[in-house]
Amino acid sequence: MTTKKITFSSQTVSYYFDSSLDQLGQLTAPDNTFIITDENIYAKHARRFKNWRTIVLKAGEEFKVQATVDAIVEELIEAGADRKTFLVGVGGGVVTDITGYVASIYMRGIQVGFVPTTILAMVDASIGGKNGIDVGIYKNMVGLIRQPSFLLYDYSLLKSLPKEEWINGFAEIIKHACIKDAAMFGLLEQHKLSAFQKDKDLLNQLIQRNALLKSKVVQQDEFEQGDRKLLNFGHTLGHAIENSYELSHGQAVALGMVVAAALSAEYRKFKDVARVVDLIEKYGLPTFAAFDAAKAMQVMQSDKKRVKDVIHYVLLDKPGKGVVVPLSVQQIEPIVTRLSQPSNL
Amino acid sequence: MTTKKITFSSQTVSYYFDSSLDQLGQLTAPDNTFIITDENIYAKHARRFKNWRTIVLKAGEEFKVQATVDAIVEELIEAGADRKTFLVGVGGGVVTDITGYVASIYMRGIQVGFVPTTILAMVDASIGGKNGIDVGIYKNMVGLIRQPSFLLYDYSLLKSLPKEEWINGFAEIIKHACIKDAAMFGLLEQHKLSAFQKDKDLLNQLIQRNALLKSKVVQQDEFEQGDRKLLNFGHTLGHAIENSYELSHGQAVALGMVVAAALSAEYRKFKDVARVVDLIEKYGLPTFAAFDAAKAMQVMQSDKKRVKDVIHYVLLDKPGKGVVVPLSVQQIEPIVTRLSQPSNL
Repeated sequence: MTTKKITFSSQTVSYYFDSSLDQLGQLTAPDNTFIITDENIYAKHARRFKNWRTIVLKAGEEFKVQATVDAIVEELIEAGADRKTFLVGVGGGVVTDITGYVASIYMRGIQVGFVPTTILAMVDASIGGKNGIDVGIYKNMVGLIRQPSFLLYDYSLLKSLPKEEWINGFAEIIKHACIKDAAMFGLLEQHKLSAFQKDKDLLNQLIQRNALLKSKVVQQDEFEQGDRKLLNFGHTLGHAIENSYELSHGQAVALGMVVAAALSAEYRKFKDVARVVDLIEKYGLPTFAAFDAAKAMQVMQSDKKRVKDVIHYVLLDKPGKGVVVPLSVQQIEPIVTRLSQPSNL
Repeated sequence: MTTKKITFSSQTVSYYFDSSLDQLGQLTAPDNTFIITDENIYAKHARRFKNWRTIVLKAGEEFKVQATVDAIVEELIEAGADRKTFLVGVGGGVVTDITGYVASIYMRGIQVGFVPTTILAMVDASIGGKNGIDVGIYKNMVGLIRQPSFLLYDYSLLKSLPKEEWINGFAEIIKHACIKDAAMFGLLEQHKLSAFQKDKDLLNQLIQRNALLKSKVVQQDEFEQGDRKLLNFGHTLGHAIENSYELSHGQAVALGMVVAAALSAEYRKFKDVARVVDLIEKYGLPTFAAFDAAKAMQVMQSDKKRVKDVIHYVLLDKPGKGVVVPLSVQQIEPIVTRLSQPSNL
């Protein structure tokens, strides 16, 4: 096990890499704690939840809504949860987002820790303190930024993770490489997915590198006034098409990264669109898909990152160097439209 | 107008005393702002809301619930509110609590200011950053601590305030005097309610004194680890009986202060129960009422301030000196039971 600590504005987060869910009792007492997980995780790892009071949610983004929050709050009240109660979210990003949100608002805030069970959650979703729920078609429209007390990494939980979920998580790993880490961009070009799935040490190094990369970006800009926005690379368009086309988050971000790379070529003289496209493809992610460009533009303009008619788009100057550029709708639309018809790449 | 600024952990709050709602445009631009108010305030002061986009809520604590939050969030989304949108809550504690809560969670937090329109909101409810909604019989079970950007005081809005609401607010003023300000305790003994209603300068001084007293207590203990708990004087029992008996908040707190004074006599050798009772009576508040003591004890034990079986009760050593004392249920129950039968005082 490797322990790291990173101090954010009002909370120090402890990271336990290469640890085990069986160690959770050393971090929080069972009689003071509720685990929140989903029915998929619970069914696959039921044995590991014995001795813990566990709230089991229905699985899936469609349950990341206020009704689920209401149900958890009622269950906590009925069980007598008080201000000293600790919540632990064991699951993917949906579970950690909901758990973090409930912990933020229950009795004006109780402690929370996360045990991410997907690559996506391990390198991205459970890190940085953003939590929230969806409202209608708008993702994370309601939520907060509040850091957990700890993140516990148990790679054995990945054994049950379907391949498409590995791929999903690598979209964010590629994103991190694109915006901040040219060396990792090279490392990803060198290896392939199956190497990380087979070699636990290689995986552990990659997970740590990504978890700490994201944590440090967030640490320097916790409330998203500047550099944290880089983490939205691929997400502006990604979020706009994710819910409408039943794409996975990773697939949506992959398509968004291709569009962002094309915008970078247009407005930042970015020369490596092909390397970005190749890397995305190498890890099993889509690079082009037909979508309704007009509708995507409309949703993008309602996104919470929008400030009036300018969209702060994350572009690349080169692999490993992201930059936030204010673009007008008029600058974005032609390229989104072109790439929404796969034959036009 | 008198301007004061108090800096909390992550926000400086500006206080504009003896100002006017007509000055709001100097603090936030109408095209970027939504006012949230209730139908009572809106009906009485409609003229003052022209030129402002206004969301009008149904009036009353029974609407301080998640359904109201859902409705406001939907209205903000439909109107295109973004991260730069400013919310201004104009109303009593229900309005400022809901407005503060929505501002905390909408798009992970947007700016908010308050224009309190009741004595209670001016001296207490709108100050200190606590916001929230009720869940079932539990008050403020869900919410956050987050400071507003400003508080604007317009005493002309009090013209339409019913006398019982003046009395309601004076319960918190008496509370402040009891826990922190012996001189104000004396001042309140000297004057009577009608003097404050008639004399704007006297009122302005009293409001400022109370707003700043509470702000400073909160400033020193924003997240309620210690001294801020003093502000719960009268509220432990008060909250437990408020909803069950259709008491106003002030009436419930008044009854709670009498019980706390009696507990202080028992466990802190407090000698001035009679002065506290007399002062409460002088400002038109009840000092005894029949209530179901067993039920009140039960609700108290479910209150969010409870940590396991000890209740941190705010008692008095003398007028102007509050103290937090951990009491067991067994220590509290006999006195609550005795005072729940008015003939037994």
